[in-house]
Amino acid sequence: MGSKIKVGILGATGAVGQRFVQLLQGHPWFEISVLTASQRNVGRRYGEACKWVLRGDMPAHLRDVVLEEARPGMDCQIVFSALPSGAAREVEQELAAAGYAVCSNASAHRYDDDIPLLIPEVNPEHLALIPVQQARRGWKGFITTNPNCSTTHLVSALHPLHQAFGIRKVFVVTMQAVSGAGYPGVSSMDILDNIVPYIPNEEEKIEQREPHKLLGRLDGERIQPAEIVISAHCNRVPVRNGHLEAVSVECKQRPSLEAIREAWQEYRPLAQQLNLPSAPQPPIVVRSEPDRPQPRMDRMLGQVPGMATVVGRLREDPLFHFKFLVLGHNTVRGAAGGSLLNAELLVAQGYLGAEAAALARVASPV
Amino acid sequence: MGSKIKVGILGATGAVGQRFVQLLQGHPWFEISVLTASQRNVGRRYGEACKWVLRGDMPAHLRDVVLEEARPGMDCQIVFSALPSGAAREVEQELAAAGYAVCSNASAHRYDDDIPLLIPEVNPEHLALIPVQQARRGWKGFITTNPNCSTTHLVSALHPLHQAFGIRKVFVVTMQAVSGAGYPGVSSMDILDNIVPYIPNEEEKIEQREPHKLLGRLDGERIQPAEIVISAHCNRVPVRNGHLEAVSVECKQRPSLEAIREAWQEYRPLAQQLNLPSAPQPPIVVRSEPDRPQPRMDRMLGQVPGMATVVGRLREDPLFHFKFLVLGHNTVRGAAGGSLLNAELLVAQGYLGAEAAALARVASPV
Amino acid sequence: MGSKIKVGILGATGAVGQRFVQLLQGHPWFEISVLTASQRNVGRRYGEACKWVLRGDMPAHLRDVVLEEARPGMDCQIVFSALPSGAAREVEQELAAAGYAVCSNASAHRYDDDIPLLIPEVNPEHLALIPVQQARRGWKGFITTNPNCSTTHLVSALHPLHQAFGIRKVFVVTMQAVSGAGYPGVSSMDILDNIVPYIPNEEEKIEQREPHKLLGRLDGERIQPAEIVISAHCNRVPVRNGHLEAVSVECKQRPSLEAIREAWQEYRPLAQQLNLPSAPQPPIVVRSEPDRPQPRMDRMLGQVPGMATVVGRLREDPLFHFKFLVLGHNTVRGAAGGSLLNAELLVAQGYLGAEAAALARVASPV
Amino acid sequence: MGSKIKVGILGATGAVGQRFVQLLQGHPWFEISVLTASQRNVGRRYGEACKWVLRGDMPAHLRDVVLEEARPGMDCQIVFSALPSGAAREVEQELAAAGYAVCSNASAHRYDDDIPLLIPEVNPEHLALIPVQQARRGWKGFITTNPNCSTTHLVSALHPLHQAFGIRKVFVVTMQAVSGAGYPGVSSMDILDNIVPYIPNEEEKIEQREPHKLLGRLDGERIQPAEIVISAHCNRVPVRNGHLEAVSVECKQRPSLEAIREAWQEYRPLAQQLNLPSAPQPPIVVRSEPDRPQPRMDRMLGQVPGMATVVGRLREDPLFHFKFLVLGHNTVRGAAGGSLLNAELLVAQGYLGAEAAALARVASPV
Repeated sequence: MGSKIKVGILGATGAVGQRFVQLLQGHPWFEISVLTASQRNVGRRYGEACKWVLRGDMPAHLRDVVLEEARPGMDCQIVFSALPSGAAREVEQELAAAGYAVCSNASAHRYDDDIPLLIPEVNPEHLALIPVQQARRGWKGFITTNPNCSTTHLVSALHPLHQAFGIRKVFVVTMQAVSGAGYPGVSSMDILDNIVPYIPNEEEKIEQREPHKLLGRLDGERIQPAEIVISAHCNRVPVRNGHLEAVSVECKQRPSLEAIREAWQEYRPLAQQLNLPSAPQPPIVVRSEPDRPQPRMDRMLGQVPGMATVVGRLREDPLFHFKFLVLGHNTVRGAAGGSLLNAELLVAQGYLGAEAAALARVASPV
Repeated sequence: MGSKIKVGILGATGAVGQRFVQLLQGHPWFEISVLTASQRNVGRRYGEACKWVLRGDMPAHLRDVVLEEARPGMDCQIVFSALPSGAAREVEQELAAAGYAVCSNASAHRYDDDIPLLIPEVNPEHLALIPVQQARRGWKGFITTNPNCSTTHLVSALHPLHQAFGIRKVFVVTMQAVSGAGYPGVSSMDILDNIVPYIPNEEEKIEQREPHKLLGRLDGERIQPAEIVISAHCNRVPVRNGHLEAVSVECKQRPSLEAIREAWQEYRPLAQQLNLPSAPQPPIVVRSEPDRPQPRMDRMLGQVPGMATVVGRLREDPLFHFKFLVLGHNTVRGAAGGSLLNAELLVAQGYLGAEAAALARVASPV
Repeated sequence: MGSKIKVGILGATGAVGQRFVQLLQGHPWFEISVLTASQRNVGRRYGEACKWVLRGDMPAHLRDVVLEEARPGMDCQIVFSALPSGAAREVEQELAAAGYAVCSNASAHRYDDDIPLLIPEVNPEHLALIPVQQARRGWKGFITTNPNCSTTHLVSALHPLHQAFGIRKVFVVTMQAVSGAGYPGVSSMDILDNIVPYIPNEEEKIEQREPHKLLGRLDGERIQPAEIVISAHCNRVPVRNGHLEAVSVECKQRPSLEAIREAWQEYRPLAQQLNLPSAPQPPIVVRSEPDRPQPRMDRMLGQVPGMATVVGRLREDPLFHFKFLVLGHNTVRGAAGGSLLNAELLVAQGYLGAEAAALARVASPV
Repeated sequence: MGSKIKVGILGATGAVGQRFVQLLQGHPWFEISVLTASQRNVGRRYGEACKWVLRGDMPAHLRDVVLEEARPGMDCQIVFSALPSGAAREVEQELAAAGYAVCSNASAHRYDDDIPLLIPEVNPEHLALIPVQQARRGWKGFITTNPNCSTTHLVSALHPLHQAFGIRKVFVVTMQAVSGAGYPGVSSMDILDNIVPYIPNEEEKIEQREPHKLLGRLDGERIQPAEIVISAHCNRVPVRNGHLEAVSVECKQRPSLEAIREAWQEYRPLAQQLNLPSAPQPPIVVRSEPDRPQPRMDRMLGQVPGMATVVGRLREDPLFHFKFLVLGHNTVRGAAGGSLLNAELLVAQGYLGAEAAALARVASPV
C-alpha cells in the first residue's frame, strides 16, 4: 500500500486547527487533504485566511490549499474537528452519518452515552461504543472525542493509580495557560501581572463529567461512571502553554509513595504497546526534583514533544493520602494531539478498515 | 503631648524595609528616627546605600539619614524588624532585653512558646504572653511577630468562620507573587512564562505551625494550638504583588453559604473597634463577581491600601463543606503592614506606656 | 455659584470611558451627569453593561446610572468622547453643532484644519481656532481633540526644547503598553514573552501629522505645521501601562546637556500657571538615575498621578545632538486625562462662559 | 579517522555553559571531554553542581562528569569559554599559550588588536590575525572571540548591505531578552510589567567597538575599523529569549528597497558555502509580513534553530535611507552558538590541523 490515509481538519484556521496542521506534518500514516473553514472563508486560500499563531511558519505546501465547507463529499477518511462546540454538534453528526471517522476535540458530543470520550492509554476498551453508536443512530461512520485539556493530564496521571489503588477522592487546583482559551482568547489586559480565578464551565467538567466517564467501566452498551468525588478550583495564569495542577488524592487504602512511583513508572498501556506514532514513551514522566514539573521547562518533554504527562513533588498529604503535581501541554496532548492519538488507535484497532490497519502495522512495527 | 513615638527600622535597605519606610510616611503616631543596615552599609546615607525598588521614589527627607548598626542605644522606642531570619534571632533578643518593643516580620521567634504570633484582628488576647516572656527571660522590652505572607491572609479569612462554625480541615493551594521572595529574589529566568511549584519551608509553615498558633487558645501562660488539619500546596507565579489562595474547608457542621457570607460581613474585631490607623475597614472585603478576587484588581482595595483581606467565589465543595478564594497583598499586610498594625495594637493596649496610649486615643478617637 | 459643570462621557463602557469616569471622581469643577453607550446598551444600567477593567471598583454612585444615546438633548455642557474613531465623526459634529463643548480623545477630527489638536502646556494659543471653526461650520458648540498616546508624551518632552533650541530632526522608537489598544485589545497569545513590532497607523501619526500640528504656529486662521522631520518605529511590549520612548534629537544648533536639563526644569507653561486641577506640577519630571524612567516605577509619578511626562538618561548622541528617554501614562495623560486637561483649559480661558470661568477661579486660585 | 575532536567547556555550570552543552549534543565533529567550573565546584559531578536552566534536562551522560579546573593539562583540543569577563582574561591566555584553540564568548579579549572578533559569515578573513597573535605572543594555541549578543545580529544583518551599498550611519534601539544577563541575572521584581532602559556597557560596545572591528578591513597585521557612525539605545524587556532591534540606516547612496531585499536574499557567505554544521541556511531570513519578526515566533527559525538572523518590516526612513527590524536568538547565535560556529570555521580552514580538517570534509561535504 503506497499512500497515506487522507484526513481533513474542520476549523483549520483557528488555534487548535493550526495545531492539528502542525502535528500532522510528516505524519507516517496521515496526510492532510482537506481544510475547512467557516462560511466567510470558504473558497479563500489557507495562507490568506489564516493568521498563523504558532511559532515559526505555516507549512509552505498548505498555503495555497483552498478552504472548503465541512460537509459530506470531502475527499478524506478521517476528520479532525477543531470546531467550537456550538458549530460542532450538527456538522459532526452529519459527517459521521455519511461515513467519516470523526475525531473531535469539541465538547459537543463528549457526554453522549454512546460516544467514546477517549484517552488511548486510559480507556481503549470504550471503543466498543462505536458499533453501539452506529447501530443506534444508523451511521456509517462514527464520532470519538477527547477530554478537555485540564482533564486529560489529570486523568492520565490518575489512571495507573486508580487501577492499582482505587481512587476515592481527588482535590485539584489548576493553573491553566492562556492558550487554552484559543485565539484571541484571553485579553492581555486581564492577565498581565494577574490571575483570573475562573474559567467558565471548567470546574463542572472536572467535578461532574469527564474523569468519571473516562475512568468508568464498560458495562455492555454503556459506561458505568467511576465513583470518585472530585473538587476542582480552576485558574487562568500568565503562562502561554502548559497546564499545571496541584492534586491531593485519597484511595481505598493508603498506598506507599514508593508504590505510587512504581505504578507510574511501570505504566505501559495499550497505546505504548502498540507503538502508536504519537504515543509518548513513557506516557508518564516522573520527576524527582523538589521544584518540578514547571510549565516552561517540562511542557515539551519526551520523544513526541507535548504528548507526555509529567508528574512530580509526590509527597504525603496531611488530609488525604498523598499529593503531587501534574503538568501537560494543553494544546498538544490536551487538544489536537489527543484527537490525533485517538485516530491512531482507531487505525491500529481496525476501525478504519483492514487496509489502514495494515499500513499502520508496516509503518510502526512494535 | 506634642511629638510622635520614635521608631527604628532594622534592615531598612531591603524590600521589606522599604515597605516599612513607605507605610510609615505620614503615620499619625509614629515617626522614623533610626534606620539600620548590615555592617558594610553602616555609616552610609540611606539614599546611597539603598536601591529603591518600590514605585515612585524614596521619601526625600530620608535620603540623608545615616545608617546605624542595630544595637541598644538607638534613639527609638519601637523597632520594626525586616531582618532575614538568620540575622534576626540574636539582634531581636538583644534589643528586647534592652527595653525596645520589637515588632518583627522575621520568622526567627514566631514559634517560641512565649512570643506572640499576632494578627490584631485574630488573636489580640495573645498579647498576654508579653509579661510571661518578660518574666521568663528577664527582658525590659519584648518581641511580637507576625505570620508569613500566605498564612496571614488565609487565617484572616478563616478566623470569623472558625469562631462561628469550628473549622476542622483546610485544603489550600497558594499562587504567590514574586515580591514575597524579596529583592532580587526570584530570577526572571525562572518565572517568565512559568510557575515554580515550590517555595522552601512554606508548606510546613502553613500545615504545621502558624495557623495553629494564631487560632490557638490562650491557656494560662501558653497557647493551645488549634486542632485543624491543613494541607497546602505552594506555588510561585509571575505576578508582582498579591497572593491568591484557593481554599476548601470542612467545619464541625456544614454552614450555609449565607451564614458564611454573614460571618465575614459582620466581622468587626478589636483592631477595627479601636480604629487603629492601619486597620482596614472592613477587615474582610467580600466580592460577589464570579471571577474575583484577582491580584492586580484587588490587592490594593480598601481605605488603607493593601491591608484588607479579600475573599470571593464562595461556593459548595463536593468533598468538604465550602470553597472560596482569598487574596491579600503580601508585602503590605503580609509583611511590613502586619508588623505595623501589631505595633498600633500594642500602643492602643498600653504596652508602650500611658503616654503612648494617650497619644493614640487623641489621634484616633473611636 | 454652588454647583459643578455637568459633563457627559461618550462611550463610557470602554476602557478609555472608564478612565474618564475614574479621573472625574471628586473633580473640583466637573460632575458626571450623562453616560452614553452604543445602541445595544442604551437603557441598561452602567453597573450591568460595563465590565470594569481598571483596578478596584466602579464608583458605587454610578452603578445605577441609565446609559443614554449620544445625541443632542443630553443634560450636560461638556462631553468627553471616548468613542472609536469611526463612530466619533458624525456624533461629535452633531453635538458640537448643537452647542456642546466636545473634548474628544478620538482621532476622527484631529487633523481637520479648523479643529485644535491640543496639549494645554504646548499649544494653548491654538484655541483661537474655535471661533474659526464655529464661524465656518455654523456650530454653536465646538470640538477640541488631544493627540494619541505616544505623541502626547513625545511632544510634551520636546516642546520646551523646541522653544529653546529649534528642533530639526527626531528619531523615536516607542515601546508601548498593551492598554493603548483598549479592551480586549491585544491578545495574551500575541504578547506574553513577545514583542509585536507593529501598531497600525501609529508611525504615520507620529511621522507625518500630530507633532507637526501640535508644534505648529498659528497663522491667522490656520496652523503652519512645524518643519521637523521625524522617523518612528512603534512596538507593542508586554507592559500594562506606560509608553516608553527612546528619542534622539538634532536641533538648529547643538545645545549643551545642561541647557536641555534647564529647559525642562524651568518649564512652567500656561496650564501650570493657571493651576488647572489636573495639571501636573511640574509638567516634566527629570530623572537623573542611569536606569530611569521605567514604566512600572514612574508612570504614576507626580501629584496628579499619570499626568506628568517623565524624562531621563539624557546624553550625547553620536549621530544627532542628544538622546534621552521619555515615559508617560498612556491611558491617563495619553488619553482620558489629556481630554480632561483640555476641558479645564477651556473653562479657565472662558470658552464655557463666564459662570464656568468664575467657578474655576474660585476653586483653583493661582 | 574514527573519532571526534575533543572539546572542553570553561564555566560549564552557568547559563551560557549550559547552552554550549546543549548545542554540542550530537555534534558531527565535536565531543565534550572536559567541563570546568570555579574552584568551589571542582571535583563535584556536573549533575550535582549545575542547576540546569534550559528547557528539558541536562544530557544524562554528562551528569557524572567530574568538574575540572580550567588549566593546561585538560584532555581536549578546543576550549569554549563561557567564563565571566573578569575570570576569562588570564585563563584564556594561559590556555592559548599552552596550545589550546580558545573560542571565547567572553569580552575580555574582544578588543585586542591581534585577536579576531569573528562572525564566520562576516569577516572570516580576520582569521589571518591568528599567526600574528601567535608570533607576537609566543603562543602555541590562539584565541578567537565572538561579539556580544546584540551586536551579532545587528552586524549580521548589516554586512551584506555594507558590502553592497557602503553604510555610513546606523541608528539602533534594542529590546533585549532577560536571558542576555545570565542566571539569575535580571530580578523578576525589576522586569515584570516593566522595561529597564539601561544595560551597563552595552551601548558603548555597539557605538564604539564591535561593529567597527567586525566590518573593518584587514590591513596587513591589523584591522582598519569601519567608518560607520552608530547611535544605540539599549533596553531590557520582559521577554525570555530573542533580541529585537529597530534599525535605521544611511548609506553612501540611497539603495532601493528591492536592492536591499535582494542583497539579503542572495547572501551566501563562506560559512554557508562550506556547509558548516551550525551554519544556518540561509543565514538571513527575510520576512514580509507587516508585523514580523517577533521574538517568540521567530527566534528559533531555520534548520539550525536559533542560529539565523531574521529581518523584516523593511521600509523607507524619513530621516535616513531605510529602516527595518532585526531579531536573533541571544544565547544561541548571540553567545554559545557564535563560538561554536567560529570553531567550525577554524576546523574547516585548517587551523586545528590537517586531521581535523579532513574529518570536517568527510562529515560535511559541500
